[in-house]
Amino acid sequence: MTGEQLRALFEQVRAGAMDVEAALERVRHLPFEDLGFAKLDHHRALRHGLPEVVLAQGKTPQQVLEIAGRLLENAPNVLVTRASCETAELLQARLKGAEYFPLSGAVRFWGDRSVRGKGRIAVVSAGTSDIPVAEEAQVTAEVMGNQVETIYDIGVAGIHRLMSNRERLSGARVVVVCAGMEGALPSVVGGLVSCPVIAVPTSVGYGASFQGLAALLGMLNSCASNVTVVNIDNGFGAGYVASLINRV
Amino acid sequence: MTGEQLRALFEQVRAGAMDVEAALERVRHLPFEDLGFAKLDHHRALRHGLPEVVLAQGKTPQQVLEIAGRLLENAPNVLVTRASCETAELLQARLKGAEYFPLSGAVRFWGDRSVRGKGRIAVVSAGTSDIPVAEEAQVTAEVMGNQVETIYDIGVAGIHRLMSNRERLSGARVVVVCAGMEGALPSVVGGLVSCPVIAVPTSVGYGASFQGLAALLGMLNSCASNVTVVNIDNGFGAGYVASLINRV
Amino acid sequence: MTGEQLRALFEQVRAGAMDVEAALERVRHLPFEDLGFAKLDHHRALRHGLPEVVLAQGKTPQQVLEIAGRLLENAPNVLVTRASCETAELLQARLKGAEYFPLSGAVRFWGDRSVRGKGRIAVVSAGTSDIPVAEEAQVTAEVMGNQVETIYDIGVAGIHRLMSNRERLSGARVVVVCAGMEGALPSVVGGLVSCPVIAVPTSVGYGASFQGLAALLGMLNSCASNVTVVNIDNGFGAGYVASLINRV
Amino acid sequence: MTGEQLRALFEQVRAGAMDVEAALERVRHLPFEDLGFAKLDHHRALRHGLPEVVLAQGKTPQQVLEIAGRLLENAPNVLVTRASCETAELLQARLKGAEYFPLSGAVRFWGDRSVRGKGRIAVVSAGTSDIPVAEEAQVTAEVMGNQVETIYDIGVAGIHRLMSNRERLSGARVVVVCAGMEGALPSVVGGLVSCPVIAVPTSVGYGASFQGLAALLGMLNSCASNVTVVNIDNGFGAGYVASLINRV
Amino acid sequence: MTGEQLRALFEQVRAGAMDVEAALERVRHLPFEDLGFAKLDHHRALRHGLPEVVLAQGKTPQQVLEIAGRLLENAPNVLVTRASCETAELLQARLKGAEYFPLSGAVRFWGDRSVRGKGRIAVVSAGTSDIPVAEEAQVTAEVMGNQVETIYDIGVAGIHRLMSNRERLSGARVVVVCAGMEGALPSVVGGLVSCPVIAVPTSVGYGASFQGLAALLGMLNSCASNVTVVNIDNGFGAGYVASLINRV
Amino acid sequence: MTGEQLRALFEQVRAGAMDVEAALERVRHLPFEDLGFAKLDHHRALRHGLPEVVLAQGKTPQQVLEIAGRLLENAPNVLVTRASCETAELLQARLKGAEYFPLSGAVRFWGDRSVRGKGRIAVVSAGTSDIPVAEEAQVTAEVMGNQVETIYDIGVAGIHRLMSNRERLSGARVVVVCAGMEGALPSVVGGLVSCPVIAVPTSVGYGASFQGLAALLGMLNSCASNVTVVNIDNGFGAGYVASLINRV
Amino acid sequence: MTGEQLRALFEQVRAGAMDVEAALERVRHLPFEDLGFAKLDHHRALRHGLPEVVLAQGKTPQQVLEIAGRLLENAPNVLVTRASCETAELLQARLKGAEYFPLSGAVRFWGDRSVRGKGRIAVVSAGTSDIPVAEEAQVTAEVMGNQVETIYDIGVAGIHRLMSNRERLSGARVVVVCAGMEGALPSVVGGLVSCPVIAVPTSVGYGASFQGLAALLGMLNSCASNVTVVNIDNGFGAGYVASLINRV
Amino acid sequence: MTGEQLRALFEQVRAGAMDVEAALERVRHLPFEDLGFAKLDHHRALRHGLPEVVLAQGKTPQQVLEIAGRLLENAPNVLVTRASCETAELLQARLKGAEYFPLSGAVRFWGDRSVRGKGRIAVVSAGTSDIPVAEEAQVTAEVMGNQVETIYDIGVAGIHRLMSNRERLSGARVVVVCAGMEGALPSVVGGLVSCPVIAVPTSVGYGASFQGLAALLGMLNSCASNVTVVNIDNGFGAGYVASLINRV
Repeated sequence: MTGEQLRALFEQVRAGAMDVEAALERVRHLPFEDLGFAKLDHHRALRHGLPEVVLAQGKTPQQVLEIAGRLLENAPNVLVTRASCETAELLQARLKGAEYFPLSGAVRFWGDRSVRGKGRIAVVSAGTSDIPVAEEAQVTAEVMGNQVETIYDIGVAGIHRLMSNRERLSGARVVVVCAGMEGALPSVVGGLVSCPVIAVPTSVGYGASFQGLAALLGMLNSCASNVTVVNIDNGFGAGYVASLINRV
Repeated sequence: MTGEQLRALFEQVRAGAMDVEAALERVRHLPFEDLGFAKLDHHRALRHGLPEVVLAQGKTPQQVLEIAGRLLENAPNVLVTRASCETAELLQARLKGAEYFPLSGAVRFWGDRSVRGKGRIAVVSAGTSDIPVAEEAQVTAEVMGNQVETIYDIGVAGIHRLMSNRERLSGARVVVVCAGMEGALPSVVGGLVSCPVIAVPTSVGYGASFQGLAALLGMLNSCASNVTVVNIDNGFGAGYVASLINRV
Repeated sequence: MTGEQLRALFEQVRAGAMDVEAALERVRHLPFEDLGFAKLDHHRALRHGLPEVVLAQGKTPQQVLEIAGRLLENAPNVLVTRASCETAELLQARLKGAEYFPLSGAVRFWGDRSVRGKGRIAVVSAGTSDIPVAEEAQVTAEVMGNQVETIYDIGVAGIHRLMSNRERLSGARVVVVCAGMEGALPSVVGGLVSCPVIAVPTSVGYGASFQGLAALLGMLNSCASNVTVVNIDNGFGAGYVASLINRV
Repeated sequence: MTGEQLRALFEQVRAGAMDVEAALERVRHLPFEDLGFAKLDHHRALRHGLPEVVLAQGKTPQQVLEIAGRLLENAPNVLVTRASCETAELLQARLKGAEYFPLSGAVRFWGDRSVRGKGRIAVVSAGTSDIPVAEEAQVTAEVMGNQVETIYDIGVAGIHRLMSNRERLSGARVVVVCAGMEGALPSVVGGLVSCPVIAVPTSVGYGASFQGLAALLGMLNSCASNVTVVNIDNGFGAGYVASLINRV
Repeated sequence: MTGEQLRALFEQVRAGAMDVEAALERVRHLPFEDLGFAKLDHHRALRHGLPEVVLAQGKTPQQVLEIAGRLLENAPNVLVTRASCETAELLQARLKGAEYFPLSGAVRFWGDRSVRGKGRIAVVSAGTSDIPVAEEAQVTAEVMGNQVETIYDIGVAGIHRLMSNRERLSGARVVVVCAGMEGALPSVVGGLVSCPVIAVPTSVGYGASFQGLAALLGMLNSCASNVTVVNIDNGFGAGYVASLINRV
Repeated sequence: MTGEQLRALFEQVRAGAMDVEAALERVRHLPFEDLGFAKLDHHRALRHGLPEVVLAQGKTPQQVLEIAGRLLENAPNVLVTRASCETAELLQARLKGAEYFPLSGAVRFWGDRSVRGKGRIAVVSAGTSDIPVAEEAQVTAEVMGNQVETIYDIGVAGIHRLMSNRERLSGARVVVVCAGMEGALPSVVGGLVSCPVIAVPTSVGYGASFQGLAALLGMLNSCASNVTVVNIDNGFGAGYVASLINRV
Repeated sequence: MTGEQLRALFEQVRAGAMDVEAALERVRHLPFEDLGFAKLDHHRALRHGLPEVVLAQGKTPQQVLEIAGRLLENAPNVLVTRASCETAELLQARLKGAEYFPLSGAVRFWGDRSVRGKGRIAVVSAGTSDIPVAEEAQVTAEVMGNQVETIYDIGVAGIHRLMSNRERLSGARVVVVCAGMEGALPSVVGGLVSCPVIAVPTSVGYGASFQGLAALLGMLNSCASNVTVVNIDNGFGAGYVASLINRV
Repeated sequence: MTGEQLRALFEQVRAGAMDVEAALERVRHLPFEDLGFAKLDHHRALRHGLPEVVLAQGKTPQQVLEIAGRLLENAPNVLVTRASCETAELLQARLKGAEYFPLSGAVRFWGDRSVRGKGRIAVVSAGTSDIPVAEEAQVTAEVMGNQVETIYDIGVAGIHRLMSNRERLSGARVVVVCAGMEGALPSVVGGLVSCPVIAVPTSVGYGASFQGLAALLGMLNSCASNVTVVNIDNGFGAGYVASLINRV
């Protein structure tokens, strides 16, 4: 219930067009938070060009289809993450405009391609195996209206590969860095650039990588001050926050 | 060695003012990276109004004094973090302009108070015991040229305290949220605002909080998409990144 | 061996109807605990309307069938938890009255539907993916004679969804809260209601959720004083204790 | 803002005693949640006989004194937990009616001693070293208006000690069980009684007890269905929830 | 090289039947440890009635077949543990006398059935799902010449089931206790008997049982002094040590 | 209540010397388990020459004094473990016959020095720093009536030290092995002897020893089949079980 | 850009054959690091006889084929690690000279078989199940120009097997030791030899081996001073470093 | 017992100078391993210029004094590690030639300063706080006869500091890298040099560094193939192995 709606209600009561009990009833059955927040969420998304997002993991293909379909009625941009092949195929078969990214399992509906970001977002991966996570970040940042530059396979054990991309990194307004194994890349990138760096540990590795724990701990302990961290393999979250920063 | 310096070198060689061997020697003994990066770091800091920062933990009071003293010769703003009482007293006795914040152990030299941030940074704590960490974030963000608003003791078990501060939160351009125990506050704040939220797990708690591990894991798994995380008790890092975002 | 039986024994001895050796033999071969406890367990269940429960996990379909069949001879209400499809189908084929809940794997025989709870139990889930665990709690609480109200998908990142259900929550006599990822919902619910809250961490999530560990630790560190915790994904346990509380 | 207050506001607007803008202003500046919740918290505590609670850990003696003093102006019963000697002495010196329990560090102001619980709460400890945690549960349950019976040192390795207290346990309406080391006692007690059992792991032990982790995991995996768990050493939480259950 | 062989060597040298160089050569090419230890191992096994044991896990069926076949040439009793169905079928098809225990994956060749243990070994399981591990202990203890009594499903939440088996437990010379979930049974059994108790944590459970870690930690922290522990699911090790104790 | 006492009760009832109500009363007020078990515990200890044991850790010096004093009235042998200097001094000052072992904190009252073990117990330590734990095992085994041979500082990195003690090890009936750091010694010893080996991980080490966790895990995974494990630093438990085995 | 190239550039500028802008352009478009490092890497590999290595895990068969094919154009020796059957078959079908090692998944192209190591490398495994990891070390060390001696199945529980191989171990210039379970072998080997020992924990084991964690921790805490450690199952890394040491 | 001694024994027997029983006795009472190994250890150390090493941690000052004193009778170089101030002062007061390094707690007796290493060892630290660990490596490598070059404070967040030391690093024959926090430096150094890199995680850091665990895991997962790892804070071990490699 917006301020305008509340004002209207008061006006009606003053004007005698609605009696007190009826007004109370309206307030009771249209609870402030429920109506207000829910709408606000929705409207805010539309106004700001934020996409609607569906996490497909743990939902049936049919459930994802229904949710995505309903969202597409109001929103030009809808992003489905972690979709299985089966889910992706159903979405492509039944909904118009679905792009499928099989590495990361993203399905994107990108109706409104306005650019909203003020600068460029760089999405970096340490190795080839980290690309699926980087792709999720890229797809997310793009659907949120950003120009994204990807720089893949510049891990720290071949520091020259990183150094030779220094200018591209320096030109970015936010950098997303995806790395598994020891997860050292965000620290080195963080030292090279002066913008915010969002570190994404990936589950790439074996043995004492403990499915990304080593990389996660490394990134949390980064000696570079401009690094923050998201969950293991959470390319979506990194792309989302990078987009928010880029539109600040 | 900047582009200009390199151009000058070539000009001298062409003009015969320097012979090839001497030019090679200059390049060899003034290696690009060493000279270049070191200066760049320094100059960049000054140009951008970034403070010089000294982590006092693990250094003797005398060492911190020497480092801080030398930095203050070039930099108007120097921040010392995690200083012991003894270190803080030494700095206050020997260096002009030292502000000491005993809760967090920060010592701040704040010569250049220009505002560089474009908006306001909100620093939030879940409980009273989280304030030392929040203070570190605040002190950092201020010395980096930001207006900071602190909102303390609005933990999730009394959700109304949080709700009644919704407007102040919504008015911020970045929000730093410090919380120990279950670390749930960033998720709730993240759902209320649309700007980036930087979550700082604190070591507040006992038993299965495992010195902040519970809060850390909670924040990494936040269901709010606009949350990134820094190390346990790392108020400095959160304030630093918030400042970078606010000046983007 | 009940007090009455023991008295009768003494009476018989006094009356000379049984000699001492025979009495000793009876006591020896009907050991107090074995007979007593075993019967008591059984009778107590029947007297109190507690269901017989079979954990199907780790048993063959045939074993579960045999156990459930035997229990149904004495008990009107039998609950089988964590049954595979195959087990459920066998139970439905061979035993009358089996309801199967495929999300949670529960199979319920609900012959005695008397209401025994004094109030209403609310079962809440943070997200859609937590519903299987919530369903197990619901099914359990119902078969134990309670009115259950389910409120799904009111996670903390959309706090208004929770707030708009405040009255339904406040009306409950016990609340079961199922949440994965950061597991923050029980703390917020705990702050809104004044009744006991039973928190169930779920294994929903990825990466640093570590199969529910993050949620578990969060709930154990809840800053709300009215929260207790059960094992990860243990909807049954939560429903069971909620029922005991509701009939206190 | 209660329903009555909202009705009054509408009445005033209808009567012309207040214009629309003023009504809107009242609603805006007296936000529903803030005023409402804050008051409700306070009033609810008083109405229900819930004590005000202060966690002293992480606060200075002076801070605890101020908070306790202010609370005592409105509340007859105030409980301070985890107070240091120094804090306890300050409270005893400056505030009337402070009882100090040095084992657990609790300080209790118990002005209103009405009994509110419907039955008896049993507080059990496995060993002598678990008594401080049990004491915190006892002190909490008492100040919340319950009759508490303590049964100490009945660990599972001497099962007869437990068995000989079976009747006292069976007579309770809720049982709190505090145990360190392997934390097995709640399972055995849970099998003996049919009421809810609240298990409190304690940090008693050494080596692979990992400061209570072993006991915590054991209790979470209890094969008794009527057991829920609170944080390590959280006697307060157990006493609190036991009290809520006992007054349901 | 036994003492007798060494003596013979010296005698030959003294008698001039062998010269010094040849004697040195014999000692060099028949290294003491290699020959000695290898033989000793083998002979010791035969003399003491210890079985030869093959851990099938991580070996191909063909490898297991070859090893078992070779061992059977010298040893009447051979035990293969953790065999897959495929391995077991191959062994049964190709080697005479193979008994297969599908629950635990043991394959036993039990040619020499002499009883070597001085008393009875009791093998106890807390629940039905722990039986595979208990079976491995039983099969091992039997093939090593012991009378084994199994007592299944006497978990601590139904303490009477345990109490009614007290005499059978007290009659044993060693007790092996297999339990998953909270792993509390060894403590209770340990308190009832005065003989050594070997505790085997099993991976039975879910959630915070962490594949047997909860049970393992519980058992290591047992408050009963007569309990030692083996690896998770290591029924073989428990049966082996129980046998050694029983023949001491 | 022994069988004889029960028989006498029946006899009295039959003879009319006691009426049924009185008999029931006696049974009720002298509950079988309580009286029976408590006495049995006590008598069993005395009959078997088991010492009474007090864990001083977590008790005040005065409490330990009282308990030890009371125990000494009935028991010739009392062992206090993990006593502080202060506790030990109090015990020595006030009770006759106290031997204090400052390395391990044991205080021993050894009135009855009969040998009850059938063979010799070897107590082995890997390094000098493990001796305190080994001493606790030794003191325990001695007070329980065993001949103990200690072999210190024979860690696996100098395998010859171990090999040269092979005969002493082979002559033992049980071996207790205390080792910190990598905890490898029990496996090597286990391969050299054919008797049971009780492994005690110690908290000796630093860094990734994690206070004995590395040694504990190593011992649990021993490739020697005759090894069982007790808690970190639990020399007492190892000595206790070794004694039970030695008297089997 | 090598020193010679840089000198030539200066010479051209001095001679007027190139103007300053063009020289700057060359430096700008042939960035020092990129060109320099990339070439150096490549040349260094060739000059030193280091093989090119491809980690197949996480790449498609086709990707591995393309990378390996391209590398083989310049390098005589290429090693592919952790290849699936499918990848190995593709490589064998399409590239000449592929040797496939199915235990470890290595595929080796070994064109240049010059011996570059100064001594012999011993590769040791504790058990049969550790051989796949040992094989990876062996294959790596061979393709890097070393003579490799393998000694398998000499685990510490049969110390004589190890002792009888003492001379072969002592003759090696570096020893690689692969062990799972308790991971004790490197400590014992380390004590027998005076050369560097590289320890490889393997994931062999079950229960509390936690997929190699027990072995890893054991090796990190080795009491032998000459032991360093690589990641769990990282036979490649061990073989690689052993080769570097052997050619020092 | 060396080959020569054995030959002499045989000669005496042949010559009739010793009878068979006496020869057997000598072999029995001078066991091969004990005498041989013990001496060999000692002699080997002297012959190879390896120092005798005493770990002071866990020993009393007096114990360390005695051990060091005895060792100095035979060895020119003795290294005491992790000595407390008190121990160091005692050693300096009572033994000639003690150098004390208070940062690392090393005490060095460096009588024989011959250079035995073939090249230079570089010891690198990421930050100032890692210097104590680096110092221990340096002191160790020096006393073992190596030229050591230290390069401190070249952490990865200021990559230019590292790059400008590239030549010094490339000139080393082995590199020891000490780093706490995220532990990323070994990977970057490993990529720059082609010699073996020994990584030492340090306990420097806070929060999620978990006392060096983050650095340890990072180093174990290094993407540089030439990196091996030692225990947290084990500068001694790194210096020791680096010395062995340098003298290969």
